[in-house]
Amino acid sequence: MKYKLTQALEVLQNTPFVLKSLFNGLSDEWIMNNEGPETFSPYDVVGHLIHGEKEDWTERIKMILEHGTSKAFVTFDRFAMYEESKGKSIQQLLEEFSVLRKINLDWFTSLQLKEEDLDKKGMHPKLGEVTLRQLLSTWVAHDLTHISQITRVMAKQYKEDIGPWVNFYRIMNF
Amino acid sequence: MKYKLTQALEVLQNTPFVLKSLFNGLSDEWIMNNEGPETFSPYDVVGHLIHGEKEDWTERIKMILEHGTSKAFVTFDRFAMYEESKGKSIQQLLEEFSVLRKINLDWFTSLQLKEEDLDKKGMHPKLGEVTLRQLLSTWVAHDLTHISQITRVMAKQYKEDIGPWVNFYRIMNF
Repeated sequence: MKYKLTQALEVLQNTPFVLKSLFNGLSDEWIMNNEGPETFSPYDVVGHLIHGEKEDWTERIKMILEHGTSKAFVTFDRFAMYEESKGKSIQQLLEEFSVLRKINLDWFTSLQLKEEDLDKKGMHPKLGEVTLRQLLSTWVAHDLTHISQITRVMAKQYKEDIGPWVNFYRIMNF
Repeated sequence: MKYKLTQALEVLQNTPFVLKSLFNGLSDEWIMNNEGPETFSPYDVVGHLIHGEKEDWTERIKMILEHGTSKAFVTFDRFAMYEESKGKSIQQLLEEFSVLRKINLDWFTSLQLKEEDLDKKGMHPKLGEVTLRQLLSTWVAHDLTHISQITRVMAKQYKEDIGPWVNFYRIMNF
């Protein structure tokens, strides 16, 4: 697939609803357990997605449109949610993500970007020159990989319980 | 986590809603593309989940409760959906899965299984002796790994488009 604005929006719009369905009525054990030391729990991932809506995607889009490659993006803090999510319930986080995503997509569509805008370049602090198209594709892929991660982390909670079936599930050892 | 009936049901009940949210309004390219030759598309996965509701989980639960290890489970056809899904829209498949899952969970809860029932044994045609607990855990893990798979397959559609960011996403090479 080649990045298209309309197809990208289809995914970005769905994510808050996917997360709400996924977490609906779940016990804390499903939400708070992780894959082992220094890995994210599903709860952590939602906090990370919120931080992305606040500090990553829209900020970097603005940076490309306003400064091109002359000013590097601010480095994204992948662990900010450990502090920011403190004391919040998963329901609060899901609502917060939902509201931020809506605001960001409203702003994003108001830009009315054209195909030629997607070739505009920005400066990533580690990756160097990147295009707006690459940043926007990554916004979508980031949502999807994190939903994939959340469900993998949940599946792994039953790694022992499924007994010999573990051999049929490559993902259990990812 | 140790398998508990109530916690398992939380996940099993949510899956139809997660899938409906995930596929809501998506272009065919998101739904029909796969990871390469002989891999499943998101559309294929939903068909596979339907076949599981028809031929796998409840059939095997019954087999354990009625025949123990004296009769082996029927081998599950992992490719049955290529024939069964033919001509059906993704909306039809999602609705079919939703109805079957509801029927199966109503039947399953009506069994009123007790903790000691979970140790009952059955005979898997390849894995040999398995317990009801292992089968029931696998039902849950199977849902989750397939949601993980669907979102991974979708994310991979942008593997080229995200450019240098591909190095940050281990999942893109899974």
